[in-house]
Amino acid sequence: MNKKSGNQTITFKEPVSILSCASVAGKKEGEGPLSKYFDKIMSDAEWGEETWEKTESKMQKTALSRAVEKAKVDLKDIDFLFAGDLLNQCTSSTFAFRGFGVPFLGVYGACSTMAETLGLASSMIDGGFAQKTAAVTSSHFCTAERQYRFPLEYGGQRPPTAQWTVTGSGAVVLGKSGGQGPFVTHFTAGKIVDAGISDANNMGAAMAPAAAETLVAHFKDTERTPDFYDLILTGDLGKIGKSIAIDLCGEQGFDLAPCYKDCGLMVFDLQKQDVHSGGSGCGCGAITLCGYVMDCFRAGKLKNVLFVGTGALLSPTSSMQGESIPCVAHAVALSANRE
Amino acid sequence: MNKKSGNQTITFKEPVSILSCASVAGKKEGEGPLSKYFDKIMSDAEWGEETWEKTESKMQKTALSRAVEKAKVDLKDIDFLFAGDLLNQCTSSTFAFRGFGVPFLGVYGACSTMAETLGLASSMIDGGFAQKTAAVTSSHFCTAERQYRFPLEYGGQRPPTAQWTVTGSGAVVLGKSGGQGPFVTHFTAGKIVDAGISDANNMGAAMAPAAAETLVAHFKDTERTPDFYDLILTGDLGKIGKSIAIDLCGEQGFDLAPCYKDCGLMVFDLQKQDVHSGGSGCGCGAITLCGYVMDCFRAGKLKNVLFVGTGALLSPTSSMQGESIPCVAHAVALSANRE
Repeated sequence: MNKKSGNQTITFKEPVSILSCASVAGKKEGEGPLSKYFDKIMSDAEWGEETWEKTESKMQKTALSRAVEKAKVDLKDIDFLFAGDLLNQCTSSTFAFRGFGVPFLGVYGACSTMAETLGLASSMIDGGFAQKTAAVTSSHFCTAERQYRFPLEYGGQRPPTAQWTVTGSGAVVLGKSGGQGPFVTHFTAGKIVDAGISDANNMGAAMAPAAAETLVAHFKDTERTPDFYDLILTGDLGKIGKSIAIDLCGEQGFDLAPCYKDCGLMVFDLQKQDVHSGGSGCGCGAITLCGYVMDCFRAGKLKNVLFVGTGALLSPTSSMQGESIPCVAHAVALSANRE
Repeated sequence: MNKKSGNQTITFKEPVSILSCASVAGKKEGEGPLSKYFDKIMSDAEWGEETWEKTESKMQKTALSRAVEKAKVDLKDIDFLFAGDLLNQCTSSTFAFRGFGVPFLGVYGACSTMAETLGLASSMIDGGFAQKTAAVTSSHFCTAERQYRFPLEYGGQRPPTAQWTVTGSGAVVLGKSGGQGPFVTHFTAGKIVDAGISDANNMGAAMAPAAAETLVAHFKDTERTPDFYDLILTGDLGKIGKSIAIDLCGEQGFDLAPCYKDCGLMVFDLQKQDVHSGGSGCGCGAITLCGYVMDCFRAGKLKNVLFVGTGALLSPTSSMQGESIPCVAHAVALSANRE
């Protein structure tokens, strides 16, 4: 057993190799601070498609195709593809991959999807079930706005706590062997935490307790302290959620502050790009991980990273029914070295 | 490696033990031919809740609680819980388990979810990552109708090809050891197949090609023929889909007919219960598997069963945009004996 009873963390017997990553970013994201790390930057929100939903599928297709190309593997070598997104019935993913001929396992973890797919795709390799797997996710500002909030044409006002859904897709190809790394060493699966927040315009505050739960579980399970990592990276807590996560982990004796960043605060310039509390969405963590983080690993600037995908598991129906927002966070530990 | 390169089928090193199953069925399902196999039959569509969405969550909670009780395990012994459903953002599952304190991995496979969760939950055990896992899913006629079709009050007419979404939830508790079985021996993950059908009232026809793809892959990968099984069971192809699946498998040299049934045709009496082409939904396969099939195994009436969850990966948005329906099917092989 490579997970102790009662723990939430899997320690992989053999760290799983990240063979390649690719990222596709929207125009606005391409004008932000992480611009130079993306594989492709879209010219506009449509990217040649008739509907934004089709655009989002094209983003996932492009990201995986590029990752497969970079890893110099064939699609037919991918044993299992894990993918998911924010759209109702996860149609960005399912429509993207209907022509790919790869065994497909759909996942729903809201904005924690990049970590969930990475964790499951790594587990299939370390479990002895696959030589190569892939993990993909995406979000698109326009598809998310019209599904979760208002038609874009309505021009709704956003409160300062609101976040801006990132238009982006990230894909990772994983392998049992080969590649220069980095490597996935651990997967901590989160529990659902509902702190009672019901304001769908303050998702950072709703998600922070779930992030803290998973972070603390990870530290306890692995007997690591935050300073083991050069970088602890949450997916999309934004300005408010980040400060709450620091407080909640601090109360339990884990000081995140020295090495902690949030993708939602990295992908946009909050002042210049008018995104209120920061970026959000499955694509936010995905393009930061598959762009910036991978580049830093390859350049030798990072040795150990803990990536924590954070998901708010609400729906417009649950919000209209007055429900609070259950959240979940999953973590994957990445290392420059096969330990 | 317990999966050959290019194959879609995992052969578990050690068959994974089904410690217990539980099923919760709606009133109409409780009046159908499988009535006596269900753990609980609901008195009405609301079951004491204010909204049908809350009812559906309560069904999942009840099914898992009952399964855990039957297996004589504690919730805290469940290492990972895999769950999903048909609702936007899978809120039946996420709201059901927010108080359970179990590491939660959300899945979206439409009506293939029972097979997908069972396959992944078994993989986590055989991969050495868990001692005990659980797999849960549900559907509810009223939540599905208003989300996918029309408000119930509208009283829309249904064409003869339409199916009736089953109100039901099934839960399975799996273990590395212990229990009398049955055992999960194989997991075949399906590819997404889009045969070009765009009629959301004819999902059986849309899903049949995906079911056939997975069935044929399973037979080729395992070098088994259909007659290895006492029972091959698809989730919810209904009358039309079933006959197409027989034809498609027949064309490839696999004669399903002698041992093949579809849960959608078992759960209701098609003549008396006015359900047109049969039952459908995640709950259809789930309650048939967790009720009838498990009972037959325990009574020694079944030795080998292939359960194939069939999912139509459409959304109302994709249908309104004129898209065809991509589908996926996943299969798990069950055996009365640890082979």
